[in-house]
Amino acid sequence: MKVKIGDKVKEFKNVWMEGNIVKVINHPKLPHFFEITELKNHKEAANAIKTMIIHGAGAIGVTAGFGMAQAALEAPDDNFDEYILDASKTLRNTRPTAQNLFYAIERMLKSIRKEDSVEKKREVAVREAQKISDEDEEACRKIGEYGKKLIKDGYGILTHCVTGALAFVDYGSALSPIKFAYNEGKKIFVFMDETRPKCQGARLSAWELLQEDIPHAVIADNAAGHYMKNGDIDICIVGADRVTVNGDVANKIGTYEKAVLAKENKIPFYIALPLSTIDLKCESGKDILIEERSQDEVLYNYGLLDNGKHGRIRISPKGSQAKNPAFDVTPAKYITGLITPKGIIKPNKENILGLFK
Amino acid sequence: MKVKIGDKVKEFKNVWMEGNIVKVINHPKLPHFFEITELKNHKEAANAIKTMIIHGAGAIGVTAGFGMAQAALEAPDDNFDEYILDASKTLRNTRPTAQNLFYAIERMLKSIRKEDSVEKKREVAVREAQKISDEDEEACRKIGEYGKKLIKDGYGILTHCVTGALAFVDYGSALSPIKFAYNEGKKIFVFMDETRPKCQGARLSAWELLQEDIPHAVIADNAAGHYMKNGDIDICIVGADRVTVNGDVANKIGTYEKAVLAKENKIPFYIALPLSTIDLKCESGKDILIEERSQDEVLYNYGLLDNGKHGRIRISPKGSQAKNPAFDVTPAKYITGLITPKGIIKPNKENILGLFK
Repeated sequence: MKVKIGDKVKEFKNVWMEGNIVKVINHPKLPHFFEITELKNHKEAANAIKTMIIHGAGAIGVTAGFGMAQAALEAPDDNFDEYILDASKTLRNTRPTAQNLFYAIERMLKSIRKEDSVEKKREVAVREAQKISDEDEEACRKIGEYGKKLIKDGYGILTHCVTGALAFVDYGSALSPIKFAYNEGKKIFVFMDETRPKCQGARLSAWELLQEDIPHAVIADNAAGHYMKNGDIDICIVGADRVTVNGDVANKIGTYEKAVLAKENKIPFYIALPLSTIDLKCESGKDILIEERSQDEVLYNYGLLDNGKHGRIRISPKGSQAKNPAFDVTPAKYITGLITPKGIIKPNKENILGLFK
Repeated sequence: MKVKIGDKVKEFKNVWMEGNIVKVINHPKLPHFFEITELKNHKEAANAIKTMIIHGAGAIGVTAGFGMAQAALEAPDDNFDEYILDASKTLRNTRPTAQNLFYAIERMLKSIRKEDSVEKKREVAVREAQKISDEDEEACRKIGEYGKKLIKDGYGILTHCVTGALAFVDYGSALSPIKFAYNEGKKIFVFMDETRPKCQGARLSAWELLQEDIPHAVIADNAAGHYMKNGDIDICIVGADRVTVNGDVANKIGTYEKAVLAKENKIPFYIALPLSTIDLKCESGKDILIEERSQDEVLYNYGLLDNGKHGRIRISPKGSQAKNPAFDVTPAKYITGLITPKGIIKPNKENILGLFK
């Protein structure tokens, strides 16, 4: 992805591995400070996922894959298997909803177990983690190539949460078609939901749109329906944290609201996702566990103070409680199509299973 | 309304007049500091409306009425009529959307013009402004009495923005039925939309619910749909800034979203309002001008810093733009009923005109 540093524009990945160090763009410091954080071992990688230094479905999966590779490099020869199993548990217990996390850890365990010698296990772990990362990047590129065809010249586009390179390794899911359409010269305008409570839209996606010079405005989540009704939005494209076999979608809280509003206003509503987001073990949205996060995310808001430092402000009175579901489930009937690296499909069981044939 | 000060609970109005001073509860200081602000003349009253020291449809109207009374007390004998006309323009040019503002100013002008002597004009101005205030209070009490019947024991209730005593003189519109139902001993739980960008729900309504000990949780506006779909919300009650003859409703941005979601989930969606909110000159929602407010309300969030002072944090990156429509229009077809001081009616022209017969 492009990052403007001073007068220059440099290319960065969101997460990558150098030797036994995993490097990630520090998300909580964005959009006000651009910093790379070094994760020295698998426990630091797990902690970075848990504390959301890195977040977004794809990025979590790739970081967990690299974390497993770190564990393989760290593990003692005489206790290799147990160490790896412990590491997989540590990495698995970081976040409960994103399918990519579990996908990456299982895939890493499987590759490592296939080899006999500890030396080979280490080799294959590093190679497999890099392969997960490369596949993530290529999947996002293809999502952009397929999805850009949905975006016509002059379109207003609504999107939600963080779905760019910052949610994956590069390009992104929902932001990928937007970037590809813009880079083809189409005139577009992005309505960027701020995405309370954590404001990943206002902070991260807006930052990424700025780096790429894509015209956009941040809006309160409350305003999306208003712009839909007024005819300013021609298409909605959002990402997913988990897609079930029947085409239901778990994604950042608020996605369900926007999908219902899009249907009511006859605006196409697309979900962009790599195949790793699909949970073949999960038949429908009813089976998805929704993470309830800290009340403070709602009672406070976090950002840059006037003194130039990071800080927070308390919004609600002392004594008020909050409820904070991090995700919601959008039933397939509200979704026009899934933009995948294998093309655009209707969200139903036949098509979704067809992606894996 | 109840206000907890230390160990004591005191009764307050939101706005009142003492001599030639208008006193208002300072809204921007809430919910962290409770302060009364004194407005010494009609220009200070206008400024308090414009800068939203006082806001909410009813409170704006009553404050404008008191402001006109102040103008009558200030006006020189030899230039009384012109001074009053200028004052009415100053007060009118503060906010563009709330019908109550224009209603109060016109009513004051009419009463003042009826009298011949300047002395009488002053007398009637003070009396008429107090009457507007008393009527507002009584209207809200009746809204509570009628509306409480809609709320059954065990109900989850969604509400939006500031609609309590802080939006009127006392009781409120949407919060009034909730308070009356709670005070009758019904077990209820209020899901309080934070109401970005200005977070009047998280700040003001949550504060009022706390004063009255009504069980509630603040939620991100994005989460309302999730709780509707999950069956946690049995009824939605919100307020209005302006209701048109055909039953369309202009209210705080996000109202339209929640109304569409309520309909989709077969949850009744009620608007609570005094008759002064109805604009008989406005046939439908298409005629309503929507106020576009400062981008900073979206790009920043305002509240209490960790050092105990009021402050703000910047959410979005420097360079990002925002769009900030303060209101949206909810077409009548999404509204189950209007809770008025004359009873609960379906939102259509016949019923609405019937309220004035």
